[in-house]
Amino acid sequence: MNTHEITKSIEGLESKKLDMAGKDFLLTWEKSKDEIEAAFLAADALRALRDAGISARLWDSGIAVSNFRDNSTRTRFSFASACDLLGLYVQDLDEGKSQVAHGETVRETATMISFLSEAIGIRDDMYLGEGDKYQREVGKALDEAVEAGVLPSRPTVVNLQSDVDHPTQAMADFLHLCHHFGGLDRLKGRKIAMSWAYSPSYGKPLSVPQGIIGLASRLGMEIDLAYPEGYDLIPEVVELSKRQAEASGGSLRVLHSMDEAFEGADIVYPKSWAPFDVMQRRVPLLHAGDQAGLKELERECLANNARFKDWECTEAKMRLTKGGGKDAPALYMHCLPADISGVSCEAGEVAASVFDRYRDDTYREAGYKPYVIAAMILLGRAEDPGHALRSLLKRGTPRSLV
Amino acid sequence: MNTHEITKSIEGLESKKLDMAGKDFLLTWEKSKDEIEAAFLAADALRALRDAGISARLWDSGIAVSNFRDNSTRTRFSFASACDLLGLYVQDLDEGKSQVAHGETVRETATMISFLSEAIGIRDDMYLGEGDKYQREVGKALDEAVEAGVLPSRPTVVNLQSDVDHPTQAMADFLHLCHHFGGLDRLKGRKIAMSWAYSPSYGKPLSVPQGIIGLASRLGMEIDLAYPEGYDLIPEVVELSKRQAEASGGSLRVLHSMDEAFEGADIVYPKSWAPFDVMQRRVPLLHAGDQAGLKELERECLANNARFKDWECTEAKMRLTKGGGKDAPALYMHCLPADISGVSCEAGEVAASVFDRYRDDTYREAGYKPYVIAAMILLGRAEDPGHALRSLLKRGTPRSLV
Amino acid sequence: MNTHEITKSIEGLESKKLDMAGKDFLLTWEKSKDEIEAAFLAADALRALRDAGISARLWDSGIAVSNFRDNSTRTRFSFASACDLLGLYVQDLDEGKSQVAHGETVRETATMISFLSEAIGIRDDMYLGEGDKYQREVGKALDEAVEAGVLPSRPTVVNLQSDVDHPTQAMADFLHLCHHFGGLDRLKGRKIAMSWAYSPSYGKPLSVPQGIIGLASRLGMEIDLAYPEGYDLIPEVVELSKRQAEASGGSLRVLHSMDEAFEGADIVYPKSWAPFDVMQRRVPLLHAGDQAGLKELERECLANNARFKDWECTEAKMRLTKGGGKDAPALYMHCLPADISGVSCEAGEVAASVFDRYRDDTYREAGYKPYVIAAMILLGRAEDPGHALRSLLKRGTPRSLV
Repeated sequence: MNTHEITKSIEGLESKKLDMAGKDFLLTWEKSKDEIEAAFLAADALRALRDAGISARLWDSGIAVSNFRDNSTRTRFSFASACDLLGLYVQDLDEGKSQVAHGETVRETATMISFLSEAIGIRDDMYLGEGDKYQREVGKALDEAVEAGVLPSRPTVVNLQSDVDHPTQAMADFLHLCHHFGGLDRLKGRKIAMSWAYSPSYGKPLSVPQGIIGLASRLGMEIDLAYPEGYDLIPEVVELSKRQAEASGGSLRVLHSMDEAFEGADIVYPKSWAPFDVMQRRVPLLHAGDQAGLKELERECLANNARFKDWECTEAKMRLTKGGGKDAPALYMHCLPADISGVSCEAGEVAASVFDRYRDDTYREAGYKPYVIAAMILLGRAEDPGHALRSLLKRGTPRSLV
Repeated sequence: MNTHEITKSIEGLESKKLDMAGKDFLLTWEKSKDEIEAAFLAADALRALRDAGISARLWDSGIAVSNFRDNSTRTRFSFASACDLLGLYVQDLDEGKSQVAHGETVRETATMISFLSEAIGIRDDMYLGEGDKYQREVGKALDEAVEAGVLPSRPTVVNLQSDVDHPTQAMADFLHLCHHFGGLDRLKGRKIAMSWAYSPSYGKPLSVPQGIIGLASRLGMEIDLAYPEGYDLIPEVVELSKRQAEASGGSLRVLHSMDEAFEGADIVYPKSWAPFDVMQRRVPLLHAGDQAGLKELERECLANNARFKDWECTEAKMRLTKGGGKDAPALYMHCLPADISGVSCEAGEVAASVFDRYRDDTYREAGYKPYVIAAMILLGRAEDPGHALRSLLKRGTPRSLV
Repeated sequence: MNTHEITKSIEGLESKKLDMAGKDFLLTWEKSKDEIEAAFLAADALRALRDAGISARLWDSGIAVSNFRDNSTRTRFSFASACDLLGLYVQDLDEGKSQVAHGETVRETATMISFLSEAIGIRDDMYLGEGDKYQREVGKALDEAVEAGVLPSRPTVVNLQSDVDHPTQAMADFLHLCHHFGGLDRLKGRKIAMSWAYSPSYGKPLSVPQGIIGLASRLGMEIDLAYPEGYDLIPEVVELSKRQAEASGGSLRVLHSMDEAFEGADIVYPKSWAPFDVMQRRVPLLHAGDQAGLKELERECLANNARFKDWECTEAKMRLTKGGGKDAPALYMHCLPADISGVSCEAGEVAASVFDRYRDDTYREAGYKPYVIAAMILLGRAEDPGHALRSLLKRGTPRSLV
């Protein structure tokens, strides 16, 4: 059994200064650089353990709560896989079955679902200005319940996508980049194009691009954030990312040309999103259940989108990237599912031939997510995560007899 | 590791005379005093095991069926937590997906879901006269299937709330009282006010107050059951509770004044319910799917409720309780969620300031439910539950490596 | 502990020539006779392990995906029980929540749900011409993902009912027959009547009768397939079964008389299904969501069904079977739930008195399904399934401390 790689990751993890136990993972920019790296290392260690056939069950029983306010296959399976890997049983908190609102109800529900829980995964990205707020409210309620002696321990909240950030996605994306480019330090100075792309749908959340610029800007990368005029992200997140980029020795430019962003890029991430102001206008309509208003907003938004059908990741655009004239163009990334022109829609974010060439890369990218989530749970719960991982290695229970 | 408390509970449990294995837990009053106490002791032992970090997985595999005929977050999570603690995997039997009716269908479904099952939790409280009956029908089908050699063992049925009793709630409530007052024997002679309270909703089940008087009356308590004229419970349950109270050296009075009930009480449990006769009239309407009839009944019932808005657990009422004039008024209890005036509704069961003071108590109260359910499963399955618990202690598997 | 029976089954299994690892279980007729027998032996071994109180957890963690495109209690519980027995956590892939279509979407979804998965159970029987095709598409996507190094291992796909075959049902049925008649070799030469029966419903899938004739024809049995004119099965499956019957030294006759089929039968399987051509006409209506067209087809089909109300498994018909004149008539089988005349419907597939006598047999029949599914997963995953089973025996972990 090759345990070298596992041990190396654990040693790396143990060299980091952490203050994550008892805390939640809501926004990457609330975590120190050491903590981000620790999450990557823990994810690598957990994956290496599984690859070596060693059980990663840190718990022999315990509940993980899955709270999805919207549909999701990928993240749902990633969360379930992560929890099962660690030995936790996933119990859905179905908003349809039990409305989680605010104030007293949040406080009470958060406690009621947590008596034997270790982790709570929340996805709440539809209502701009509310998802992140709600997750903090849950966290605060848990803190109070622990302090009052009502809960035996503090379950850790993992943001499975909010209106502000999508840290499990961004962290999986960058763990993929680490492995693709041969290390986190190899990302410094590389150019990433986070670009809006055309899609025949509307209302896609801002948290993916925000998550990407929020994390890339920690790593000294040259970020080109490109979108048609009007398709702004949350201004505060862009400002913060700019400051972070500067501090890390990188840069962040906002452009309104996909071509310019792709020019010389090492990495391209063409992905549709709804304009910030549309998302803002959408919230009161959603709350009011104003179907006519929503329909009208959709119509207007789709009509506007249609003006930017040329924001498509084509072969021609890929040729603009670094090495694009030669054999090795930029790495294409996507959180999936992508709108593939001529495949999943008539015209979309990416040309079929481009996507075809990078399909396996995007699958590999997605494959990091379960381990990233498992790492976040481990780090949110363990006072000494290195020791916990070493215990798994020492115990050496085979994951399977097959 | 402090295992003293665990051992003490196990020893207590072993001193009881039990006939619970292979039986169901449907009504507390079908269980002997020893059996009730055994359930409390088993719950304490399981909780102490978990607190000591020792795995309580009695099973390494096995199914627990969760059959909820109405929505529920609290009980659903309690059941899932209990089952996971014991090592059972919860599989939902969704009535929406698979209608469980009566006769042949009940017999067949009960068997089909039980080939590898250890426990079946059923919540069926909406139809007066049917929930308890249905649970018995399931139990009978299981008995027959075991006798015919069709099932390898008899899963135990746990009543997660029926039209008649809510034993997991009542048992959790009284385990909370045990710990609050320092022992089951310390409840004898104490006065509990089980009082109706105003709520702006209607159709709340009778099983909570029935469960409380059905169990309090076993423990020598002085019970004041108070409600506005017309808001009767199932007469047979009240009669039975009166007889039980007498036999246990306590008493049960039926009053029509919240004030009188609160007067000198050690414990108050102000909680809304629908009148018995309304619940009776509701059943045929529900069966017929008579939306107009249901709407009309609701309207009538809400109008009637509104006459009793002063049935609210206010600061003034709390001052009537024992120690209420001084610093230590009665213990407030609720099964949650409570209708809190000015918080979850305009006017409700309890004043916000009262609830605020007791919030953590009610959370603590709820925290016993997973362990009570786990205890019921253990006792319904184990021929020698003390031995099973000792085996857990002896095995000493850590629940977590974190 | 009696481990003799377990060892005997394992030895039998080890004597078979298998090529099942990394493959899917979609149609029994794609498996060799040795492979069919191996599945029976593995199922017996797993059941015997459980009966002996020995844990059959081959995995300590791992995901099993449950993908049901229609409602099902029995198969859902069988799958969940099988997976839990082996240590896998079942995660539902809810088509309502995440539409699984074809092409790119199938490829992508199949990969996204499989990063930590060991098995994928799919039930897709409503659309004639599509279920089996879809399952193969999933399998192909998994092969590609493994080859590309995107998935660490190949989850095995288990057909939980397609438009073509229902192998978990057929295999459970025949494992029941093995045990009933004392061995697989004791089935040779026996007569089985797979007969259509009247039901007041319509649209029942063809996969049950197809599965029965497709498997019985491998075992040298004399098969009478009986149905009213027009109620054909998929012609290719009948042709294939005829050829298989001949090759195995048995026979397959298609008759249009229930009486003739029952005449001298050892086993009768009276079960309703929709005519092949009705299922064909139904597919475009379902796709178009043409409610009026579906309603009209149903009306027509029910009217046609009603002409054959005498296709009922009555006492008189049972007397026609071998030993029917004496005390020991044929064994009645059904996949459940049966339409029982005067019980679940006015007039149905079987007389109440007949069903009553065989109820426990049908329950026993159903009881094999979880073990058959577990065996299929084991064989689809283990390079050396005999060794895996021996490891369980050697490890000897008790399944329960109760």
